[in-house]
Amino acid sequence: MTSASDKAVRPYVAEHADEFFAELNEWLRIPSISSDPASAPEVRRSAEWLAAKLREIGFPTVEIWETAGGKGLPTVFAEWPSGDDDAPTVAVYGHHDVQPVTPLDLWDTPPFEPTVKGDRLYARGAADDKGQLAFHLLGLRAHLAVTGRSAPAVNLKIIAEGEEESGSPNFRALLEDKRDRVKADVVVVSDTGMWDRETPSTCTGMRGMITGQADLSGPANDVHSGSFGGAIPNPLTELVRLMGRVHDDDKRVVIPGFYDGVVELTDTDREMFAKLPFDEQAWLGNAKSAATAGEAGFTTLERVWARPTFELNGFWGGHTGPGHKTIVPAEAHAKISMRLVAGQAPLDVAKKFEDWFFANIPAGLTGGLHWESDGVKPCMTPLDHPAVQAITRSMGKAFGELDDPREVLFTREGGSGPEADLQEVVEAPVVFLGVSLPSDGWHSPNESVTIPLLLKGAEAAAYLWSDLAEQR
Amino acid sequence: MTSASDKAVRPYVAEHADEFFAELNEWLRIPSISSDPASAPEVRRSAEWLAAKLREIGFPTVEIWETAGGKGLPTVFAEWPSGDDDAPTVAVYGHHDVQPVTPLDLWDTPPFEPTVKGDRLYARGAADDKGQLAFHLLGLRAHLAVTGRSAPAVNLKIIAEGEEESGSPNFRALLEDKRDRVKADVVVVSDTGMWDRETPSTCTGMRGMITGQADLSGPANDVHSGSFGGAIPNPLTELVRLMGRVHDDDKRVVIPGFYDGVVELTDTDREMFAKLPFDEQAWLGNAKSAATAGEAGFTTLERVWARPTFELNGFWGGHTGPGHKTIVPAEAHAKISMRLVAGQAPLDVAKKFEDWFFANIPAGLTGGLHWESDGVKPCMTPLDHPAVQAITRSMGKAFGELDDPREVLFTREGGSGPEADLQEVVEAPVVFLGVSLPSDGWHSPNESVTIPLLLKGAEAAAYLWSDLAEQR
Repeated sequence: MTSASDKAVRPYVAEHADEFFAELNEWLRIPSISSDPASAPEVRRSAEWLAAKLREIGFPTVEIWETAGGKGLPTVFAEWPSGDDDAPTVAVYGHHDVQPVTPLDLWDTPPFEPTVKGDRLYARGAADDKGQLAFHLLGLRAHLAVTGRSAPAVNLKIIAEGEEESGSPNFRALLEDKRDRVKADVVVVSDTGMWDRETPSTCTGMRGMITGQADLSGPANDVHSGSFGGAIPNPLTELVRLMGRVHDDDKRVVIPGFYDGVVELTDTDREMFAKLPFDEQAWLGNAKSAATAGEAGFTTLERVWARPTFELNGFWGGHTGPGHKTIVPAEAHAKISMRLVAGQAPLDVAKKFEDWFFANIPAGLTGGLHWESDGVKPCMTPLDHPAVQAITRSMGKAFGELDDPREVLFTREGGSGPEADLQEVVEAPVVFLGVSLPSDGWHSPNESVTIPLLLKGAEAAAYLWSDLAEQR
Repeated sequence: MTSASDKAVRPYVAEHADEFFAELNEWLRIPSISSDPASAPEVRRSAEWLAAKLREIGFPTVEIWETAGGKGLPTVFAEWPSGDDDAPTVAVYGHHDVQPVTPLDLWDTPPFEPTVKGDRLYARGAADDKGQLAFHLLGLRAHLAVTGRSAPAVNLKIIAEGEEESGSPNFRALLEDKRDRVKADVVVVSDTGMWDRETPSTCTGMRGMITGQADLSGPANDVHSGSFGGAIPNPLTELVRLMGRVHDDDKRVVIPGFYDGVVELTDTDREMFAKLPFDEQAWLGNAKSAATAGEAGFTTLERVWARPTFELNGFWGGHTGPGHKTIVPAEAHAKISMRLVAGQAPLDVAKKFEDWFFANIPAGLTGGLHWESDGVKPCMTPLDHPAVQAITRSMGKAFGELDDPREVLFTREGGSGPEADLQEVVEAPVVFLGVSLPSDGWHSPNESVTIPLLLKGAEAAAYLWSDLAEQR
C-alpha cells in the first residue's frame, strides 16, 4: 500500500535533517539518568522538553504523567485524533530516560555533548532511546507535510516512559491507571534495532521471564562429614541433584507441563530466521563462549528467541572460601530464572516448577521457594499480522525504493521487557520499528547511532501512518 | 590369656589412683594449646613434663623430637626394651597438645584448673588426650609391679605427638624420618573412646579421605541470559548436572572403579555393629538432621563407618547476593570430599574421579580439578586380628572380672586421622585402647573424663602387655 504522497517523504526528510539533528542534540544534552536520584530534575526537564516539542508539532493533548513511587521520573503522554471516523489508533512507545555514564573516562567524547564523527552521532541516549523516539517527530512532520493533513491519518498516541532504564517499576501500574487513555489498535515500539546495517529487520517478539530462589535446608547447622557424611541427607548435594535433573540429555526441561501452550515455530518463522546472515563465530564472540549448546532440534537463534529456558544464575552452599571444611552444610541456595515464550504465563510456569520442586525434595530436608516478582510476560505478534506487514512495507520502502522495496527480515529478542504489559493493558498487538544496530553500544561508553538510519526511521514512520490508515 | 599376675592389677590401680590423679592434674595444668603460637612454650613444657615422668617410671630412652615447620611443638618418644628375646614390640600413640579453650565464658570451671565433680574430672585435655595417655603411666607401673619385672613384658615405645590438634602437619614426615626408631609389631592408639559407659568397645578402623575443588569455566565473563541463555553451555548448570550425577538413585557413587578394592563388611562385622545399642533418635539429634539417608542396603553405622562417600562440602557460582542477576555465569566451583574405607587409596580414587570428571565436561566448557593434599589413608584391623583380640580380652577383664570378662564390642570412626600413617610407616596393625565417652566434650567447653574409666584404661593396659607377650 503506497500512497501518492509517499514519494515526497524522502525529499522532506532530507531537507529537514539538519533541523532534526539540532533538535535531537538539544534533547541529548539533558542528562536524564533515571537510576540516579540526583538526576531526577533532569529527567523531568527531558519530559518537559519532549512535551513542548509535541505541542509545537501540533498535538492537541500533551500531558506529563507522574508515576507511583514518588521518584519524579514522569512519563510523557500525547494524543492527536485523526479526525477521520474509522481511523485506527496507534500508540508509539519509547522512553526518554537514559542509562548512567560511568565510567566516564571510557568515553572518547562527553556523553551529554552530542558529537558527530563520520556518519555517527555519539551521545548517551543517541540510540537508546531518544534518537529513536525523536525520528517519530521528524516522521510525523513529514507525514503531515506530504499528505497536507492538519492531523495524522491515524489517531496517534505517544507514550514516552521516564523509568525504563530503572526497570520500569511503575509502568504497568501507570498503564492500568490510564487504561482508557492508552487504548489503541496497535502499539509501535521504537526501542529495539535491526539485524545489521545491511539487513533491515523488525522484531516480532520478546521472551518473558520469571526469576526466583530455591533453597534446601538440612541439619540445623553445618555438621562433621566424618561423623555424619553419607548417613544424613546433604542439602547441598540434594539441591545439586535436583537442579541437575531439570534438563534431560536433549537439554529439554523435564518439569511436567513446562512446554504446555508454547507457540511452536512455524515453517515460515524458521525460514525467515534462517535468512538472517547469522555469523556463529561472531555471535560466540559476543557470548564469550567457546561453543553453542541448547535444546536439541533448534538453531542458536531459535533457542534464544523462540524457546523457553531454565537457567541457573547463581548457586551457593557450604564452605566457599579458601581451604577445605569437611562438613555436611546446613543449607544450599539456587538463583533460578526461566525465560518464557508466547503461550506461557510466568505464574503458571512458576507454579509448575513449584509443584515439581516440592514433590522431589528428599525426606529430611526442607525446601523454600521465592519468586522475585510476578515475572514478565512474553509477547509475540505473528509474521502475517497486518500491523507487522505494514511495518515491513514501510521499512522496505524506506530502505529501498517505493517501487522496489527492500526485503525486511524478522528477528525476536531473547530478553524480556515491558512490551508484554503494553500488549496486555493496551489490548493491542505490539510491533517494532527500530533502526539501532547491535554495535551502537547501548548501556556502554561511547553509545552512538547511525545518522542515515535515524532518517530511514523517520521515513518509515511517515509511510507507516498512511499505510495503517489505508488498511482500515 | 590371663597371667597369674593379673589378679593383682586391680588392687594396685585402686591403691595408686590418688597418686595417679595428682600426677595427671599437674600435666593438665600446662596449657599446651598447639594451634596458638603464643602457647608453644607450654607445649614444650608439656613435652618435658611427660619426658621426665617416663624417665621416672624407668624408660631408659626418652627423647624430645622436634618436628619440621619450626613451630616448637615437639613429639615425645620413649622406648623400653623388654629384655626378652622374642618379645613383641608395641608402640603406644597419643598426643600431649590440646585444643584452644575459647569461648572461655562457657567453661564452668577454669580449663587449666582440673576440677572433680562427682566421678568426673573437668579440664582441657582430660579426655583428649592427656588423660588417656596418662592411664598408660599407671598401667605400666601396675604391669611392672604385679609381674615383678624390671622391664615391661613387651618392647614398649611411646609416641606422644605435640601437633595433633593442629592437624598433624609434620607427623608423617617425622615418622618417616624416624622410621627405624618407631618400628613396632603393633600400634596401640589411645586417642578414641568407647560406645558408652555401659558398652566397652574398641575401634577397629577409620575412614580415609581426599578433599579438593572442581571448577568449570564457560563464557569469559558473565553474559546476559536473555541474549545468550539456552544457546551456550552454562558452567554453573553443567557443574550442577555433573555433580548431581555422582550418585545414582540408590546413593551409590557412579564414578567407574570408585568401589574397587573396598573391603566389604563381613557378616561378623555387621553382627557386631548391630549389637551396639544404637539410638537413632539420639544420633539424629547429634546430626541435627530430621532423617537418615544414604547408600541403599546399609545401616546408619555401616554407612558412616564402613562405606566410602562422595560429599559436596561447598558450592558457588554466579550471583549469590540479594536480588537477581539474569546471567549465564562465567564459572562455578565445588568443594568435594571423598571418605574412603580399607582397600581404597586416596590418590587412586582421586584419579578415578579425575578421569570421570574430565571425560564428562560438556563441549565449550573448561574444567579444573585441584586436590588439597595427597589425602589421608583409611585404616582397619580385622576383628580376628590377634592384636584386636588382645585388646578385647584386656578390656573385657578390666570392665568385668578375670573369670567373667565383659563382652567388648567393635566400633569404627567415620572421620579420618593420622592412624593410617602409623599403620603404613610403622608397618604394623593399629588397634585402639580408649575409654573416653562421646559425652566427654572433646574440643568443647567443659571437657571432662569419667574418673573410674581412666582407671579401667590403666587396668586394661596392664593386662594388655602381659597378654601380647604371651601371644608370641
